[in-house]
Amino acid sequence: MSILVVGSVALDSIQTPFGRVKEALGGTATYFSIAATLYAPVKLVGVVGTDFPQEHIDFLKERGVDLKGLQMARGKTFRWSARYDYDLGAAETLDTQLNVFASFHPQLPEEYRASNYVFLANIDPHLQLEVLEQVRNPRLVVLDTMNYWINYKKGALTEAMKAVDIVMINETEARQYAKTFSLVRATRKILSLGPRAVVVKKGEYGAAMFCANEDPRAAFFFAPAYPLEKISDPTGAGDSFAGGFMGYIAQQGDCSDECLKRAIVHGSVVASFAVEGFGVDRLRNLTREEIKGRYQEFKHFTHFEPLEA
Amino acid sequence: MSILVVGSVALDSIQTPFGRVKEALGGTATYFSIAATLYAPVKLVGVVGTDFPQEHIDFLKERGVDLKGLQMARGKTFRWSARYDYDLGAAETLDTQLNVFASFHPQLPEEYRASNYVFLANIDPHLQLEVLEQVRNPRLVVLDTMNYWINYKKGALTEAMKAVDIVMINETEARQYAKTFSLVRATRKILSLGPRAVVVKKGEYGAAMFCANEDPRAAFFFAPAYPLEKISDPTGAGDSFAGGFMGYIAQQGDCSDECLKRAIVHGSVVASFAVEGFGVDRLRNLTREEIKGRYQEFKHFTHFEPLEA
Repeated sequence: MSILVVGSVALDSIQTPFGRVKEALGGTATYFSIAATLYAPVKLVGVVGTDFPQEHIDFLKERGVDLKGLQMARGKTFRWSARYDYDLGAAETLDTQLNVFASFHPQLPEEYRASNYVFLANIDPHLQLEVLEQVRNPRLVVLDTMNYWINYKKGALTEAMKAVDIVMINETEARQYAKTFSLVRATRKILSLGPRAVVVKKGEYGAAMFCANEDPRAAFFFAPAYPLEKISDPTGAGDSFAGGFMGYIAQQGDCSDECLKRAIVHGSVVASFAVEGFGVDRLRNLTREEIKGRYQEFKHFTHFEPLEA
Repeated sequence: MSILVVGSVALDSIQTPFGRVKEALGGTATYFSIAATLYAPVKLVGVVGTDFPQEHIDFLKERGVDLKGLQMARGKTFRWSARYDYDLGAAETLDTQLNVFASFHPQLPEEYRASNYVFLANIDPHLQLEVLEQVRNPRLVVLDTMNYWINYKKGALTEAMKAVDIVMINETEARQYAKTFSLVRATRKILSLGPRAVVVKKGEYGAAMFCANEDPRAAFFFAPAYPLEKISDPTGAGDSFAGGFMGYIAQQGDCSDECLKRAIVHGSVVASFAVEGFGVDRLRNLTREEIKGRYQEFKHFTHFEPLEA
């Protein structure tokens, strides 16, 4: 049932046209964990500096996040500073201070090694591979990445992709990785490495899943993004999506394609709430009832009658 | 049952990374008619010059397009020349020669005036209003437009929007018209003018419908684009979509929201075939069986199980 995540725990400073926060709780593993704990317990592997506020530790623990795998290293916590323009499509990174993250190597506590569900958030693919060496027979491993690793560590990233069940990637990054504009061809190239599915995140255009399935009807699935009137802060949307996705799968204990489809909708629902608030604020008080309500709306938004027999 | 369309009939010269055509049959009313006649008869209102090839006239007539409303004026036919880059997202117009289209005024033959289903393709909104003055009690009127009319004839366009049932518009044009990045707000602004629905075309990201419905579950519908490996020529995708959409509605004789949703899927299916070939080539030999097959694929692509009771 429980989920292992490895990724960043950070202090984010964000500006959008609708507000700003300074040194707020952030990081890929953080967003993922807060989202996934709406469904199942999470074990977190990461690193913070000695300056990391105790209140964040307390909050994550209360939330059901196991922090035995969170190292505290001498030095400062990873900091990221970014700005979004009105289209809210892409963050402009203003500053990245890796700090203690620069020399991070994941160390899994013994009881983490038997985790069934593993999410390798966007970090150096060498570290993703180090985590995979430490886990024993997971049921489902999902990997996320970013343009930086495609540019500078493509070999290691390819090795990591070969070792996982699902690659989760942004649309532009899938095209960049495969060097083709065609998303169908790009995902086919990634599938040829071995994963059973590629989940493509398209931001405001929703999410698609391409599966290694010879039946074309079963090779593709699509869910739109929830039609939001206002987005406050898109930071963490992808990791919240991943948290809802993995959380639902772990909760159900079901890795079938049909469950993955429902998991994509859960990911879309959780991400739609995440971006309504600044940082992790909206996820803090998000309830399972709210998730269910929006899930049912998604069902209405995409339903049409089949052909007459 | 029959459909009235007013729009351009043109000779298009197109370059894409995958090929080129010179002075091929094109125009908004042409693409619309060829697509819609897969479902129901079409009456066309437009203009061509004396240089318009007879073979195109013969082809459209064989197809079931009534051309009594197609004027032949002294002079040359409307010509459009454009180029697409690898992303195939937006055409770069190289040349536009309005020719006989410059002084065109739609004249509806008497038997056209009782048409139930009216599509006002992308033309000067003053001409769209002239058509509406000539039709009697249509069941459903749909309007398309483009950035040019938003920039230069916004007042007339707004009057036309007030007079129709459905506004069909590109995503960027909806934002441009309403001067907001939020698509939810943009479509709400258009709905406030009176139409019962706004159908937003998002190209490779599919199509969405926003309805004037107080129940939020019934206020939004979304269909993805068919995941094509290769697009040869995106010209006419929007008008082919409109043709499949209106054609299906006219065939069914049903203007309910549920029928509009199925019509959006039909529009997406027809457009997905249209862009596989150059110009209207793929639409020429498209069969109803092929449409049904892809419709069923769409059903699979978007289906997920509802919440457990």
